Amino acid sequence: MDSALRYAETNFDRFTEELEELLRIPSVSTDSAYADDVRDAAQWLVDHFEEAGIETAEIMETDGHPIVYAAHHAGDDKPTVLVYGHYDVQPPDPLDEWESDPFEPTRRNGTIYARGACDDKGQMFMHPKAAEAYLHGEGELPVNLKFVIEGEEETGSIHLPGFIESHAHRLDADVVLISDTAMFAPGVPSITYGLRGLAYTEITLQGPNRDLHSGIYGGGVDNPVHALSDIISNLTDDNGRVAIPGFYDDVRDLTDEERKTYARLPFDEDSWMDEIGIEATRTEAGYTTLECLSARPTLDVNGIWGGYTGEGAKTVLPAKAHAKISMRLVPNQRAEDIYEKMESYLKARCPDTMSLTFRRLHGGKPVLVDTESAAMQSAKAAMGEVVGTEPVFVRNGGSIPIVADFKDILGLDSVLMGFGLDSDAIHSPNEHFAVDRFQQGIRSIIRFHEHYAASA
Amino acid sequence: MDSALRYAETNFDRFTEELEELLRIPSVSTDSAYADDVRDAAQWLVDHFEEAGIETAEIMETDGHPIVYAAHHAGDDKPTVLVYGHYDVQPPDPLDEWESDPFEPTRRNGTIYARGACDDKGQMFMHPKAAEAYLHGEGELPVNLKFVIEGEEETGSIHLPGFIESHAHRLDADVVLISDTAMFAPGVPSITYGLRGLAYTEITLQGPNRDLHSGIYGGGVDNPVHALSDIISNLTDDNGRVAIPGFYDDVRDLTDEERKTYARLPFDEDSWMDEIGIEATRTEAGYTTLECLSARPTLDVNGIWGGYTGEGAKTVLPAKAHAKISMRLVPNQRAEDIYEKMESYLKARCPDTMSLTFRRLHGGKPVLVDTESAAMQSAKAAMGEVVGTEPVFVRNGGSIPIVADFKDILGLDSVLMGFGLDSDAIHSPNEHFAVDRFQQGIRSIIRFHEHYAASA
Repeated sequence: MDSALRYAETNFDRFTEELEELLRIPSVSTDSAYADDVRDAAQWLVDHFEEAGIETAEIMETDGHPIVYAAHHAGDDKPTVLVYGHYDVQPPDPLDEWESDPFEPTRRNGTIYARGACDDKGQMFMHPKAAEAYLHGEGELPVNLKFVIEGEEETGSIHLPGFIESHAHRLDADVVLISDTAMFAPGVPSITYGLRGLAYTEITLQGPNRDLHSGIYGGGVDNPVHALSDIISNLTDDNGRVAIPGFYDDVRDLTDEERKTYARLPFDEDSWMDEIGIEATRTEAGYTTLECLSARPTLDVNGIWGGYTGEGAKTVLPAKAHAKISMRLVPNQRAEDIYEKMESYLKARCPDTMSLTFRRLHGGKPVLVDTESAAMQSAKAAMGEVVGTEPVFVRNGGSIPIVADFKDILGLDSVLMGFGLDSDAIHSPNEHFAVDRFQQGIRSIIRFHEHYAASA
Repeated sequence: MDSALRYAETNFDRFTEELEELLRIPSVSTDSAYADDVRDAAQWLVDHFEEAGIETAEIMETDGHPIVYAAHHAGDDKPTVLVYGHYDVQPPDPLDEWESDPFEPTRRNGTIYARGACDDKGQMFMHPKAAEAYLHGEGELPVNLKFVIEGEEETGSIHLPGFIESHAHRLDADVVLISDTAMFAPGVPSITYGLRGLAYTEITLQGPNRDLHSGIYGGGVDNPVHALSDIISNLTDDNGRVAIPGFYDDVRDLTDEERKTYARLPFDEDSWMDEIGIEATRTEAGYTTLECLSARPTLDVNGIWGGYTGEGAKTVLPAKAHAKISMRLVPNQRAEDIYEKMESYLKARCPDTMSLTFRRLHGGKPVLVDTESAAMQSAKAAMGEVVGTEPVFVRNGGSIPIVADFKDILGLDSVLMGFGLDSDAIHSPNEHFAVDRFQQGIRSIIRFHEHYAASA
């Protein structure tokens, strides 16, 4: 392990430059205009795994964007770690809010600014670099490694569960290791044991068969934007709770122990509000802000549009109004059940002046992992040694649906050892990742493999 | 008058060919690529006024597209009619939905298909042709004529009020005559005596200082789309009334006589709903659909946007949400007063989790003209004689801001004597105007001048 760590120290500059090469490829998975770039990123990774000395690396086709699979066998007596990550990124818009080109990584004050710098190219890329440090520094790996790096995480990983099912034997492992989460706070190494699920919908209300002149038709024709606003307004109540009947039926409430852990976390609510520029929170009555951010289910409109949205005034009465609405789920809510309850509620509230279309875009299961396992304790030891502070086990408000799939299909728990920060602006303009956290991540992964090999 | 009418009959074919010449000039005012064409159309009109025997015709510059001014003095003892019209047109797109070239007028079944055929080249051009019929048929006009034909109506007539103010003395007249409206139904000659005003706003709600990840922040941060939806939802009530306090304070209610007139209009509500594809109306309680469409004030969201509106799913909690919201006003509402009431109401409803920006985009005054005036009765007599059916006085739900400007600046009422039909597809592909309505218009204008000269 020491030689691996030394190799990493010597090569950190090159590692960072390589990451920047990957960040230059605009692998936006949700927009078909970038399909070739997504494939280029996959091919770049395959080439890179090979250069790093990994035995096997290949592009594996799906009905969507390809998956990069790589593997290195260290010995039959060694445990197998399946590394999961993703090489696709969110769209960069709004472009005019970026201080530098989202696809031309720029270093300012020891931090790399680029779309994907943190989510997840930066964090994912620590894993082949840790492997390279072992292979070139020690000459061998303490664990068998398998890598599944997908290109559709930002569009809901739709083809990944099928891929895992089809290749379950090949993907056989002892644990899944993922770096796609954030530390609770700067300097607080964190291992995520809980994730929220997701149910993402798109609804369209159609009134008249075409956009109408608001002078000629206004006063007689119901407006889909008004109807959509009514519907959205009635999706939550004055207590910050989701108003869909039955929405909370399957919610596992927080244990007293969990609430105590939450209360001990170093959370400065005022600074948190300052950082995002708000003067008041909006939370579910009866729970702390931190609890609401990760252990309670939510509903948010992610986007809304309809009618004339250009410059100036156009007196149009829109034919249609649209909204993307998603819900974050917690154990033991199920996306299918929530979709059904929401659809019934919306259809019941659609006025007779228009029609409603309900689309289920994608869902994901919520997750809770046992913090006492060998893998979780190895991660805790590794991160603690690197950072010099005892790591905390935390729940995350985001969703990594694939974690539930790994459990369901392969029976594997996932260790979520992330080095991001909430302030890294992932999914936002000026996404960034600090070079020192990139380095800490590589060191921690190197130590994790050693601890896990010893304890497993 | 009889000689003028005979002259017109003899020359209708040529009149139509001349209109087609004007329609070939793509005078799209909103797109600077057509600026030369707009000027060509103005010059074509000046030349044409001169050929028709009008004494004065000239291009008058503005800071935008030019205005064509023409005048013919018939005698100091004669009343003066100021004709207003516009020679600019809407853009032709979507081009692929036109059955023939929008700028190559094509006659099918006695109807001219071209951009501007009805709005307003076809209707405007009836006026110089009626004048020519008098000048060449009778040798003299029964009224003094002044023409203001602008090139910016489709972009909001921004330079016209200033032009009228600067040339108020030169534009001195007894009445304004405009053909830029539609008949209530085919075969029902209509004179518009009421127009709604407009107050057009744009509001923005800002929550956090940037778009946030809905997993990391969802549950703690209020969502501007939710807040905007609440606000929109509370702008109208269950009775289809605008909920802004004081909104109806200055509304002049319909008289019993007006309500009787509305009730007599040939309105088939089912066909009207079929045509726009709705199964139910939404109207203000206590008023008929027709009344709500033109004699009652309204509020409509013209556009809404915020967050992610592209393809697929993006789990963003938007920083901002925007809406364009306009109100159609009726006498004696004033846009400034309504803006103030709306802004107070919105600011009071903005939650403490976000800030609200309120912009006043543009307003226009509502108009009501006394139907008993000599000019209105002259129009009624003229149209009735030509069409053979008693004309109706109607109110129009749209706005023609320049009508209020003529009243405010010159103290003049406008006679809105239009020969369009709602089905003429103005502003849409395949705009058209029937040749027989073009001819009816010319005959009606000839008769109007005679009646008005006799009664004024």
